[in-house]
Amino acid sequence: MTVPRPSLDRTDPEGAVTAAAKRCSNAGRWGSDDVHGTLNFLTPQARVRAAALVRRGVTFSLAQTFDEHGPQRGWRRRTNPVHSMTDTGTDAERGVQGFPHGFGGADDVVSMPLQCSTQWDGLGHIFDHGTAYNGRRAGDVVTSAGDAVTGIETAAALIAGRGVLLDVGRVLGDGELPDGFAILPEHLDATAAAHGVTIEEGDIVCVRTGRLSRARREGWGEYAGGDSPGLSFLCADWLHDSRIAAIATDTWGFEVRPNEFDDSFQPLHQVVIPHIGLYIGEMWDFDALAEDCAADGAHAFWLTAVPIPFTGAVGAPVNPLAVK
Amino acid sequence: MTVPRPSLDRTDPEGAVTAAAKRCSNAGRWGSDDVHGTLNFLTPQARVRAAALVRRGVTFSLAQTFDEHGPQRGWRRRTNPVHSMTDTGTDAERGVQGFPHGFGGADDVVSMPLQCSTQWDGLGHIFDHGTAYNGRRAGDVVTSAGDAVTGIETAAALIAGRGVLLDVGRVLGDGELPDGFAILPEHLDATAAAHGVTIEEGDIVCVRTGRLSRARREGWGEYAGGDSPGLSFLCADWLHDSRIAAIATDTWGFEVRPNEFDDSFQPLHQVVIPHIGLYIGEMWDFDALAEDCAADGAHAFWLTAVPIPFTGAVGAPVNPLAVK
Amino acid sequence: MTVPRPSLDRTDPEGAVTAAAKRCSNAGRWGSDDVHGTLNFLTPQARVRAAALVRRGVTFSLAQTFDEHGPQRGWRRRTNPVHSMTDTGTDAERGVQGFPHGFGGADDVVSMPLQCSTQWDGLGHIFDHGTAYNGRRAGDVVTSAGDAVTGIETAAALIAGRGVLLDVGRVLGDGELPDGFAILPEHLDATAAAHGVTIEEGDIVCVRTGRLSRARREGWGEYAGGDSPGLSFLCADWLHDSRIAAIATDTWGFEVRPNEFDDSFQPLHQVVIPHIGLYIGEMWDFDALAEDCAADGAHAFWLTAVPIPFTGAVGAPVNPLAVK
Amino acid sequence: MTVPRPSLDRTDPEGAVTAAAKRCSNAGRWGSDDVHGTLNFLTPQARVRAAALVRRGVTFSLAQTFDEHGPQRGWRRRTNPVHSMTDTGTDAERGVQGFPHGFGGADDVVSMPLQCSTQWDGLGHIFDHGTAYNGRRAGDVVTSAGDAVTGIETAAALIAGRGVLLDVGRVLGDGELPDGFAILPEHLDATAAAHGVTIEEGDIVCVRTGRLSRARREGWGEYAGGDSPGLSFLCADWLHDSRIAAIATDTWGFEVRPNEFDDSFQPLHQVVIPHIGLYIGEMWDFDALAEDCAADGAHAFWLTAVPIPFTGAVGAPVNPLAVK
Repeated sequence: MTVPRPSLDRTDPEGAVTAAAKRCSNAGRWGSDDVHGTLNFLTPQARVRAAALVRRGVTFSLAQTFDEHGPQRGWRRRTNPVHSMTDTGTDAERGVQGFPHGFGGADDVVSMPLQCSTQWDGLGHIFDHGTAYNGRRAGDVVTSAGDAVTGIETAAALIAGRGVLLDVGRVLGDGELPDGFAILPEHLDATAAAHGVTIEEGDIVCVRTGRLSRARREGWGEYAGGDSPGLSFLCADWLHDSRIAAIATDTWGFEVRPNEFDDSFQPLHQVVIPHIGLYIGEMWDFDALAEDCAADGAHAFWLTAVPIPFTGAVGAPVNPLAVK
Repeated sequence: MTVPRPSLDRTDPEGAVTAAAKRCSNAGRWGSDDVHGTLNFLTPQARVRAAALVRRGVTFSLAQTFDEHGPQRGWRRRTNPVHSMTDTGTDAERGVQGFPHGFGGADDVVSMPLQCSTQWDGLGHIFDHGTAYNGRRAGDVVTSAGDAVTGIETAAALIAGRGVLLDVGRVLGDGELPDGFAILPEHLDATAAAHGVTIEEGDIVCVRTGRLSRARREGWGEYAGGDSPGLSFLCADWLHDSRIAAIATDTWGFEVRPNEFDDSFQPLHQVVIPHIGLYIGEMWDFDALAEDCAADGAHAFWLTAVPIPFTGAVGAPVNPLAVK
Repeated sequence: MTVPRPSLDRTDPEGAVTAAAKRCSNAGRWGSDDVHGTLNFLTPQARVRAAALVRRGVTFSLAQTFDEHGPQRGWRRRTNPVHSMTDTGTDAERGVQGFPHGFGGADDVVSMPLQCSTQWDGLGHIFDHGTAYNGRRAGDVVTSAGDAVTGIETAAALIAGRGVLLDVGRVLGDGELPDGFAILPEHLDATAAAHGVTIEEGDIVCVRTGRLSRARREGWGEYAGGDSPGLSFLCADWLHDSRIAAIATDTWGFEVRPNEFDDSFQPLHQVVIPHIGLYIGEMWDFDALAEDCAADGAHAFWLTAVPIPFTGAVGAPVNPLAVK
Repeated sequence: MTVPRPSLDRTDPEGAVTAAAKRCSNAGRWGSDDVHGTLNFLTPQARVRAAALVRRGVTFSLAQTFDEHGPQRGWRRRTNPVHSMTDTGTDAERGVQGFPHGFGGADDVVSMPLQCSTQWDGLGHIFDHGTAYNGRRAGDVVTSAGDAVTGIETAAALIAGRGVLLDVGRVLGDGELPDGFAILPEHLDATAAAHGVTIEEGDIVCVRTGRLSRARREGWGEYAGGDSPGLSFLCADWLHDSRIAAIATDTWGFEVRPNEFDDSFQPLHQVVIPHIGLYIGEMWDFDALAEDCAADGAHAFWLTAVPIPFTGAVGAPVNPLAVK
């Protein structure tokens, strides 16, 4: 895989986005009606090969727990989940529920932003100058009624295949990369090489930075929205050329923070989602899996990561499950 | 597998529950600290065998879509999910979002009961006379703060293994069983035999009644809480003796409705959850999978069905994915 | 007060709206920056006069109770409120809360549409061809971030003054008007005359149709969104010319249902909110007040009806309190 | 009014609560069925007198705005309100809503704790050793289904009468009391005397500490749950003996923080709500009203403060309106 190295002019994020978009666009690649983007790279054949990676039958949930102790601080109305009970064991035990023959029950409700914890960004999550994935107008795709075209339910059956962990935090850092560390394409390649794994078409690439491990140890602090290691804007071509199906990280926002341009906000998203059509996973928890991969040397595994299919959602919670 | 046939006295649900509980209790089976119940039957070895069932790489999401058009009608505060946008493509296209360099985004929130659509019942969902799974007092397990012991997060990494579809609707009906049809153990066995499949320890058994197909065709009506085909109370021993890891149906409530006793409410739940410690999946959608199984004759498959790990939840949404 | 009688061509709601809007527009009346609309008619002097109507000190809440038993059925994601407890007395009594010195508490959360029960429509609730109150573009007023201009919080201190009950259901019906009954200006005038009350500038006019009484007796049925008595489109000029501050009814949607035009949806709203700038109250409960007014003959009272000031809301719950 | 001065032993909150409860209990005062507590002191006659305080017709909303910028930080799942739009002006203007004749609409939903902003504590909010107001068992009153006895809807028509502002911040401080300042009965009396006002039976007493003004100037910080001026535990008898209908403050928690006992949590609540049966308002905003009262010297006014009647709620949002 040859990786272009476009120059990065800090003062011109708009120009950089435009240039990268031009190089990396998948608009029309799978037809004008396509709603799946890079998930098209994930074929049944790739799944069959990936299933063969189940050798010990051990499983790793890559989800954080969803509760009020999560990282969110209310920015853009992103709170942590508010879980509450509509029936409890306390009530059942006290006999106040009114059911017959000693039956008792507990039940619960939740309110939450769909992207408050371990999640997929859907293809309707980000726009470039009012354009959504596959050249559609943003307002034709996502209104107050939700994403009528590329809603997350379109991916409900698709995201299962070969996962590959690139533990950049462990290979390049001492387990954790510092905030502001921009992961370059060569870092990804070097990590894969160190692991002895090759990225293949249709892979779901899992990049561990160690940022979540640090948050666990030190407290959330600015985990959600603050400084963080993450992918450099210069990874745009790598993400496109590698023909991967999806990418996920253990950080809030996938790309390095602070962003690499002045006066900018998540410029890599602006290329990756509307132009490459790539699914991005955020706030995944790779720590237990990474320990296992370091121990057995196998960094590829069977990964199922299908989102809860909220109709029209532009992102959704997911409990990704790696099996080795 | 020999299946006991206890007599069923319509006037004494409490006695029937007590007797079945005595026969079928798994309390203490995996130690007094156990929180996993029948998921203990699902071993790494079983997973390795099940992964070999991935032969064509085709996938089937067994989740209904989650939206306001779902089956709920508000009973016990069970509404359908309310999904709303906090940012839209319409706003992005109009340029009112205030982001730099042409960046635009969409974001969303949801409020919902955790058991409003395709879901797992957790082990803290149902109690028998104030007793929860493994002999615990209900009030020691589930308070207003949630399930502190057997919360659904305890199953986050576990439910992946061999799924077996028992398409009772197709084998015994004409694709659909009528409401009130009580599926007996012999029906389950006959269906398995017709499919040429044998239920094994650790299986996740998927019972298709056709009730969802009917709701799709005729409208939800009383799908949620009304009359339905479902498992007979007489299946309690089968569910226990078969050493399955979990069971799921395409109906609202797993067991037949109206219930088979006078003045009763979900008596089979009262045995199955607190005594057997069995995970129950409800409102799963087997229709596409069933078509495929009927076509290729293979009714066993690799199934991943890990719930979103809401801490302390007594049930949770899941997008079960079958792969063949 | 002279009331124009424009002709009503069932086939041309758009033309009728345009003509009524032209006759009745208050755009610019209180300056181009105005956000209060007809609440400008409600002056401190009017309040002083109205407070003198407190003679017996008796109070009437005009709010329905807010709970899951309300009228909503999920249309356009309008559910009933979902109220759940995050702490309970059961938990407190059982001693599981962890507070010192015998302290126990109960706490609760709610999820709800802001217009699911007794409510005010804010001025950002309805648009005419993309135009909001006072000639603003709808997209300059209400984005996904809410109503940045005329949000309901702008009325937080204003709606207290003279309320007048027009019990049309009692005067013209036998307590209740039938569904589809279009209340004409002459009906309003006749009712006021029967009550011996005169509508004055700045009044908050409360029109009782009896529709809520019927729903109470017969069940909600189609109360929310179905057929109903209500104001005729022909009331537009009356509502404008009378210089009232606000109007409220006991129905879901203020205007008669079915609407009086073919292929139409709430055409009177389209005149009243964006052009007249009139606050509309819906689903108010006048029944107890109406009994009292019938008994003592006094149909004017002191009315406080300030909405909960959700920033940027286009409608909000209110507990209107009439004091006589 | 003679005010007892019980001694305060920092090491024995439980003893202090028990003693104060014994002195101040209103259990049985209004009959064993009573659900209104001190609101019984607020009579129609008192309302008639209070309405005469409307002299200029000016109004003051005492509510904070309800939005994501509020004081909550997630403690005990208390978030700020999450308000989101289900329809917007942007959508309407772009013509994507599907309504006929140019009709467009905006609509919205909210999720929030009922006590996240300006609010009343209901009588089911706090318990003392498992006992609720009027000697009831907490578990007989508040289950997961809500408060079946003293739910906030029972106060829906009651809280309108004479409000009295005691601007302790201005009289004793320089506009603001420091955090940890325990307001003693003599401070309340001195403030009333400075204002030239006398507390009367049935009054709704509004105690301004200035804490909210400080939060506005300096940021929320620990406003919700942190240090604060507030009423001393030694006010229990004053609150009881004064026969007031309700009390409200501009702080998160009404009583001084840190609490005046070691290892304690809101001990004054534990006396006031379950024993006195007193309604407590929290997070009210008195700043504009206080300016006006300082200017015209009139500290008594007509006050309407009826909560939104969520059935079974143990607290509720309110927009209190003072009229002078």
